Amino acid sequence: MAEVDPTSLPSDDTGSVKTAHVVFTPSGKHGDFPIGTPILQAARQLGVDIDSVCGGRGICGRCQVVPSVGDFSKFKIKSRAENLSEPSAPELRYKEKRGLKEGRRLGCSTFIEGDLVIDVPADSQVHKQVVRKRAEVRAIEINPITTLHYIEVEEPDMHHPSGDLERVQQALKEQWDITVDETDLHVLHTLQKNLRKGEWKVTAAIRNGHHLVYIWPGFHERAFGCAIDVGSTTMSVHLTDLRTGDVVTSVGAMNPQIRFGEDLMSRVSYVMMNPGGDAEMTAAVRETLGYLINQASTEAQVAPTEIMELVLVGNPIMHHLILGIDPTELGWAPFALATNQALRITAAELDLKGKTNPGARAFFLPCVAGHVGADAAAVVLAEGPQYRDEVTLVVDVGTNAEIVLGNKDRLLACSSPTGPALEGAQISSGQRAAPGAIERVRIDPTTLEPRFRVIGTDLWSDDPGFPDAVKKIGVTGICGSGIIEVLAEMFLAGVITEDGIIDGSLADRTDRIVPEGRTFSYILNRGEPEIRVTQADVRAIQLAKAALYAGAQLLIDKFGKPVERVVLAGAFGSHIDSKYAMVLGLIPDCPLDMVASVGNAAGTGARIALLNKKARNEIKEIVTHIEKIETAVEPRFQEHFVGAMAFPHKTAPFPNLASVVRLPEKKTTSGGAGDGEGGGRRRRRRG
Amino acid sequence: MAEVDPTSLPSDDTGSVKTAHVVFTPSGKHGDFPIGTPILQAARQLGVDIDSVCGGRGICGRCQVVPSVGDFSKFKIKSRAENLSEPSAPELRYKEKRGLKEGRRLGCSTFIEGDLVIDVPADSQVHKQVVRKRAEVRAIEINPITTLHYIEVEEPDMHHPSGDLERVQQALKEQWDITVDETDLHVLHTLQKNLRKGEWKVTAAIRNGHHLVYIWPGFHERAFGCAIDVGSTTMSVHLTDLRTGDVVTSVGAMNPQIRFGEDLMSRVSYVMMNPGGDAEMTAAVRETLGYLINQASTEAQVAPTEIMELVLVGNPIMHHLILGIDPTELGWAPFALATNQALRITAAELDLKGKTNPGARAFFLPCVAGHVGADAAAVVLAEGPQYRDEVTLVVDVGTNAEIVLGNKDRLLACSSPTGPALEGAQISSGQRAAPGAIERVRIDPTTLEPRFRVIGTDLWSDDPGFPDAVKKIGVTGICGSGIIEVLAEMFLAGVITEDGIIDGSLADRTDRIVPEGRTFSYILNRGEPEIRVTQADVRAIQLAKAALYAGAQLLIDKFGKPVERVVLAGAFGSHIDSKYAMVLGLIPDCPLDMVASVGNAAGTGARIALLNKKARNEIKEIVTHIEKIETAVEPRFQEHFVGAMAFPHKTAPFPNLASVVRLPEKKTTSGGAGDGEGGGRRRRRRG
Repeated sequence: MAEVDPTSLPSDDTGSVKTAHVVFTPSGKHGDFPIGTPILQAARQLGVDIDSVCGGRGICGRCQVVPSVGDFSKFKIKSRAENLSEPSAPELRYKEKRGLKEGRRLGCSTFIEGDLVIDVPADSQVHKQVVRKRAEVRAIEINPITTLHYIEVEEPDMHHPSGDLERVQQALKEQWDITVDETDLHVLHTLQKNLRKGEWKVTAAIRNGHHLVYIWPGFHERAFGCAIDVGSTTMSVHLTDLRTGDVVTSVGAMNPQIRFGEDLMSRVSYVMMNPGGDAEMTAAVRETLGYLINQASTEAQVAPTEIMELVLVGNPIMHHLILGIDPTELGWAPFALATNQALRITAAELDLKGKTNPGARAFFLPCVAGHVGADAAAVVLAEGPQYRDEVTLVVDVGTNAEIVLGNKDRLLACSSPTGPALEGAQISSGQRAAPGAIERVRIDPTTLEPRFRVIGTDLWSDDPGFPDAVKKIGVTGICGSGIIEVLAEMFLAGVITEDGIIDGSLADRTDRIVPEGRTFSYILNRGEPEIRVTQADVRAIQLAKAALYAGAQLLIDKFGKPVERVVLAGAFGSHIDSKYAMVLGLIPDCPLDMVASVGNAAGTGARIALLNKKARNEIKEIVTHIEKIETAVEPRFQEHFVGAMAFPHKTAPFPNLASVVRLPEKKTTSGGAGDGEGGGRRRRRRG
Repeated sequence: MAEVDPTSLPSDDTGSVKTAHVVFTPSGKHGDFPIGTPILQAARQLGVDIDSVCGGRGICGRCQVVPSVGDFSKFKIKSRAENLSEPSAPELRYKEKRGLKEGRRLGCSTFIEGDLVIDVPADSQVHKQVVRKRAEVRAIEINPITTLHYIEVEEPDMHHPSGDLERVQQALKEQWDITVDETDLHVLHTLQKNLRKGEWKVTAAIRNGHHLVYIWPGFHERAFGCAIDVGSTTMSVHLTDLRTGDVVTSVGAMNPQIRFGEDLMSRVSYVMMNPGGDAEMTAAVRETLGYLINQASTEAQVAPTEIMELVLVGNPIMHHLILGIDPTELGWAPFALATNQALRITAAELDLKGKTNPGARAFFLPCVAGHVGADAAAVVLAEGPQYRDEVTLVVDVGTNAEIVLGNKDRLLACSSPTGPALEGAQISSGQRAAPGAIERVRIDPTTLEPRFRVIGTDLWSDDPGFPDAVKKIGVTGICGSGIIEVLAEMFLAGVITEDGIIDGSLADRTDRIVPEGRTFSYILNRGEPEIRVTQADVRAIQLAKAALYAGAQLLIDKFGKPVERVVLAGAFGSHIDSKYAMVLGLIPDCPLDMVASVGNAAGTGARIALLNKKARNEIKEIVTHIEKIETAVEPRFQEHFVGAMAFPHKTAPFPNLASVVRLPEKKTTSGGAGDGEGGGRRRRRRG
């Protein structure tokens, strides 16, 4: 707690200056101040966290305070209403123009007239906290790298000649104690007009405390940023208010590179086989990014010039391609990245001219190594396994899965090529999570009859109102979480064996099991279209989940301790029922209540880096300590992969799961499935 | 002088390591080294200034030394040939491939075998000096901001994964003790290919000791820069070798902005009257700059990627226009610059993509204030009046004249709108300094007959061989220095009065004086074309020289001491005879041998900033101390201007000039000329 030295302020008894004692809550900081001191100034002198963009001119309204009236024996203060000055002209003007809640005063325009207890509400603090929904994750402290500062600039005088920029710098120094040592060229292009338009009152955007990146004429208080997740399949932009931390709008689109190849390795192959293919893909992804930013700012009525900062995350191949780096080296061992450092470039270098403020910068989170990218770093930043005692497994499911394991002592990471099956692609009836998609499934173990729910209605398919409810939307396919449930239920009902074979012998018991060539399929819904689960679908999921499990197992082997907690991240992870994920053996056994589905953790990590500049250094530091495990050179990966092909696993016991779910007896209709197949596929995908 | 601590190296008597004593000349640095130490290493340990790009691998040949053989009693050393190792394989390879002068050895591949005296020749020193022609100016120490470093980079290893950039940074740290904390994005675009193409041996270009701006595969040792002078009328590019300081080629062109207006103020008017006119002019000047850089690199067989650095100087309006800043504010009081700081931008920001290395930076010298620009700063850097005791007047003659006065105690500067007359424009027979232009003139005071010399022959016009000599080139006009001489000779011969009137009464004595309307002209050459000096020509020169003199006088008034030395700079100044300049009163009276014509001092200043990074900080610092005098607000300027219209001056005595030239008696044919005219014109030009 800070305290102003009382010896420097003569008291009422000994000198001419009358002082009052002021206590600020919730910080508890307090001190004595001369009568007539503005509350904002007193707060600043004590180091109380209180915001201001206009520098105490009664314009921005960020320094609102709530005077507390009453006897505060704990502070030995009687805080009276009359100990505050009457509302001043700037405060009345502000109140009329923008409104001021009952009981609130502007700290800059209200003066101390006697002893006071002053509360600084959360929204008036500079370093406000954005509390997240889940209790176990840290709140985000708002502390963006770009800040706005209103200044009043001296006019030019021929007798004491100086440049306009120099007088802006002088104003920033005198009025905000900011020393500018770097200025963007584009600032000079509009500086003189803006100074005159604003009648020598302007708002400066300062990056990282020293770099002048923009000037608005007059007072300007809005600043936004974009948290951007560039996935292999989808891209998303979260337009975020840098003052409040609120996501004002989120937009997404398919990654246009899909036309060059569904998965990452086919895109690398495209580059290898088509000279200039990398430039084509870079142009495509940048164009879509520009489109999305534009869409987001239009939707939210944010001017492009108000977008000051971008943070990008993505896997290494996306990271390289959006940066314009040929990803060929990631197509073969030793999987050398051009760089794994965090990068800071201009938005213009991403061809985003006109889409953002000309001074906007794009920050790329660091990559870990090989195929463990900035998306993994973002997940670590969002989930913070490094701050916990329990051993946490974080699995970010996408076309490539990033897997992180560890606790406060040690972090390990690897990447595993799951392919797009877990996102519903390569599944015969697979589709995006959209109205009409089956998302929940139950199968009666006796009759083998299914019932299900589709996105767009809360009714189950055996509810009488169901046909009416789906009249418009139809029953169109199975989304990612639906495919997990149907397979898990098929396995629990005995329709699929432990080895993943659809048991044709059950065709006697139900007409839902039908032959299809030399294998069998299960009819989930008769209708138009008919929705089936084929043997190939089961195989695709087996390969994906085996890759995921084998990667996790490899990290567990290295770490030497069992998993105590699982975090399922990724768009896929946000809707999945963790019980079914464990039934299929996507994740290792652990107490079910220790499995959390957290949605787009990479996007959250990007948003944290957007809102808090210290988080950037934090993740740079953490990444240097993450031990990267290269699955391609780990002999045990193959072995783990084979074992993980079975449901839930060939050999590993699942005691936690077994305590809540009745797992079927082990039964096998044929030999082990997928051994050679899985390995072959895996090799292909890695190039 | 450094000395290696002998206690850290056990001597022959006390330990097992045999050492030898080595003295380096010319530095005199010396120390004891273990037998077998490479000479380069010994030199480095002592801090001897010795170059190397390849880091001691026998590739670059920059560390050549000359062993001195003999008894050096002053060093108490017998330096013997056998105290050096035999030529090693790298040295023999270098000698065969690139040659090695007799007596020279490669410091990196030659080992100490006994006591030695080793000379480091000037061309092996990093901080070589470029000695300039004029004795009174400082030599330029070569210390460019961009340096090249050959490195051998570790190959990627999947078991210890790291990015390619990170291993490049590690090599720079280990092999050169360079910590890279900034890397251009374009470096990442080619990094992986270049590393593999160079088989993990590359050359890095490092800017300012920390910033990685380019990577060449393999060994690369050439680096160039451009010193660029953007004048109102002409632009010049001096392509300079950053290793040797040599200007390898100079190219020039007319400033294409001339089509928007002859002088600066008419260009500002163009912008005021044509919205977007500034962008047009910016595009025009940048296009010509690109063309000139391209022409220079083609002529000198320099690859664009070898051009690492640009330094630009120019007056404030050119400075603003080439930077893309609207110069409107310079068109009216208070003549506020957008900025007067030195600027560093990328060459790409000047639309020079493809014309230079993608990592090239452009450095703009600081402006002083108002109309005193980066060209004036460059002149100060080149001439260094601030390092001298004598009061020096530096006049940079162009369409606007920059005038600097001062000595080690104080520097003053102003700008004066001379117009283009002194460059030969606005003169009826004026032309550029090219073959056929009259550059020297003598007039017989008795007969009033002239004789002259033209560019392209050494003969005078009254030599018998003259007609033959000019048969091809012709006698086509008068260049800048010619117009000064002809007017001065006309004045000395009594053809022009002190007030600048061509004396029509002399038409009786010579048919060279002919009436032309209400005034008279003097026929300098009969022929095709006829070359005349008209009354309007005399007026144009009078106005220009009065502006120049009045500006100088204003500074002299402020300084309070007479001028002891005059430096005439500018393309115009390089050919002018200082005696004639003084006869006309372009410059104040001072001893004639203290007047120097130095040519393009602004270009020289740009070259100094190009070759020596410390000079950049030096001029930044100096500029903050230059006192800018605004002629527009100095009431005495008008008064000085009126007095300076006369030849050499209405009132000021010219005792030094009078001691070497017989000045005519004062005679006047009419009232004072040009008072209102000059003032009016001046006001027009300043907007």
